[in-house]
Amino acid sequence: MTKSTSEKSLVNSNGKIVKREDATVSIFDRGFLFGDSIYEVTHTYDQVPFHLEEHLDRLENSARGIGMDLEFSKDFLKKEIDKTCQALGLPRQYLRIIITRGEGEIGLDPALSQSQNFFIIAKELPEYPKRWYEKGLSVIIAQVIRNPKKSIDPNVKSGNYLNNVMAMQQAKEMGADDAVMLNHKGQVTECTTSNIWIIQGQKIMTPPLQAGLLGGITRKALLALGKKHGLDMIESNFTADSLKQADEAFITSSTKEIVPITKIDGKNLGSGNPGEVTKKLTKLYQDYVRETISSYKS
Amino acid sequence: MTKSTSEKSLVNSNGKIVKREDATVSIFDRGFLFGDSIYEVTHTYDQVPFHLEEHLDRLENSARGIGMDLEFSKDFLKKEIDKTCQALGLPRQYLRIIITRGEGEIGLDPALSQSQNFFIIAKELPEYPKRWYEKGLSVIIAQVIRNPKKSIDPNVKSGNYLNNVMAMQQAKEMGADDAVMLNHKGQVTECTTSNIWIIQGQKIMTPPLQAGLLGGITRKALLALGKKHGLDMIESNFTADSLKQADEAFITSSTKEIVPITKIDGKNLGSGNPGEVTKKLTKLYQDYVRETISSYKS
Repeated sequence: MTKSTSEKSLVNSNGKIVKREDATVSIFDRGFLFGDSIYEVTHTYDQVPFHLEEHLDRLENSARGIGMDLEFSKDFLKKEIDKTCQALGLPRQYLRIIITRGEGEIGLDPALSQSQNFFIIAKELPEYPKRWYEKGLSVIIAQVIRNPKKSIDPNVKSGNYLNNVMAMQQAKEMGADDAVMLNHKGQVTECTTSNIWIIQGQKIMTPPLQAGLLGGITRKALLALGKKHGLDMIESNFTADSLKQADEAFITSSTKEIVPITKIDGKNLGSGNPGEVTKKLTKLYQDYVRETISSYKS
Repeated sequence: MTKSTSEKSLVNSNGKIVKREDATVSIFDRGFLFGDSIYEVTHTYDQVPFHLEEHLDRLENSARGIGMDLEFSKDFLKKEIDKTCQALGLPRQYLRIIITRGEGEIGLDPALSQSQNFFIIAKELPEYPKRWYEKGLSVIIAQVIRNPKKSIDPNVKSGNYLNNVMAMQQAKEMGADDAVMLNHKGQVTECTTSNIWIIQGQKIMTPPLQAGLLGGITRKALLALGKKHGLDMIESNFTADSLKQADEAFITSSTKEIVPITKIDGKNLGSGNPGEVTKKLTKLYQDYVRETISSYKS
């Protein structure tokens, strides 16, 4: 009956390693009642979490963004993450770190909670469809508008993800893989769980943080990497029309890395196949990942 | 250690009546991961849930709002609510009905979930502070902007409540009881868990649904009740300045009913005491509640 029992996974529930089916939380936890939680997702290479320092920095930033005084230090979380990875023992793991404001009497005031809860989900990193990388993604422009920074800042990874869930739902209804979300000015922000890039001639562009998006860690690494290789990496706003008329487009995400976009709203983007610049960046990024992993070991 | 053990409560967890401490949910439930859930809150008089039909209608409306195909009929939920109320056996109960999109593999696509989960929390209705009713509430104008309808419609009661949590947090930091939330046009929408009203001369005004707010059940009942009594009940937009300059102001909520506002951003509103029109409406509403309860019994 459950779709997921074949999957290898373990959960660190407030320090205790438990099986997936035993990983529960009180329904009086604010994470469940209000989405009053923050999270991060990364994955491991050879059992070593990638860009972990950056992810934990961002977790701290998310905490600040919702006024949460984080009860767990980075060192503590690193040890707990390591413990969880060791327990699962797989080389390639998906890792999700969730911290909630904790359980308490029902009410919006965060002071009602007693102490924060943390969970670390470690599971076998799924094999993403080869089609994504070889043929590219089909995306739509979502009708749902990305949360504005003044309401719920998209640069906070929180338990409030209905905005993106609804955009993804629209994509699936249209037979697409993902949705591009615009802000209220009609500017492109990001996809539902990834940053977006377009290539126009020699320019490699991604929207700036001010557009209202999550400052992706792969996004930041790729900006630096491209610049190091003399490429014209630009943070600039663009519209859905510019996206549709781009030569190439792709997304970046910590778990999926670089995936080409080849279709928008049912129409081919550029040639309708992954472009040469996207392939070149993918190669550069893969080399960078290998070097970074080596540096962790030395 | 727990602040809440003195409180009498029970939980209906997917049909099974359990103690509060046994009311848990998988951390793989979408309600916990993404706030992918809907809810309603009502309360009982003499063990009978008030305005239940209206609350269940609104629950169905919330489900439609997030594209959730509700697996539970109103009749089914009524029976489960009744079962829960009977089990707790108190005359005045707070009731919270929560429905999540269920558990599944981690991912935004709602199709990943298997089947929905429902929870009904029944607990002793708290005695709200007498000060609220006798002296009135102190509120602030929140800097956090209410979610726009095109992002997450405030007329959906969902598990995404960080927007309101942050506004309430601002209020508490300023020593206030609650926060008034504006939309991106600067119009007043609602408080963090209640509708807001102002009185200007003979006019009794509350913002229209188009401003981006939850269509409150007490709000709707009071609009009809006031009209029936020949009062000038108006749905109209107003700004924070109009609110500050109003003769009187109050909030409505299913559990709190009518509570005067007497202070905004640290300054007295009107006389700084609950106003005469607010008192008159409170009396009318209390009579209406008594009559409605009697009609349920006959």
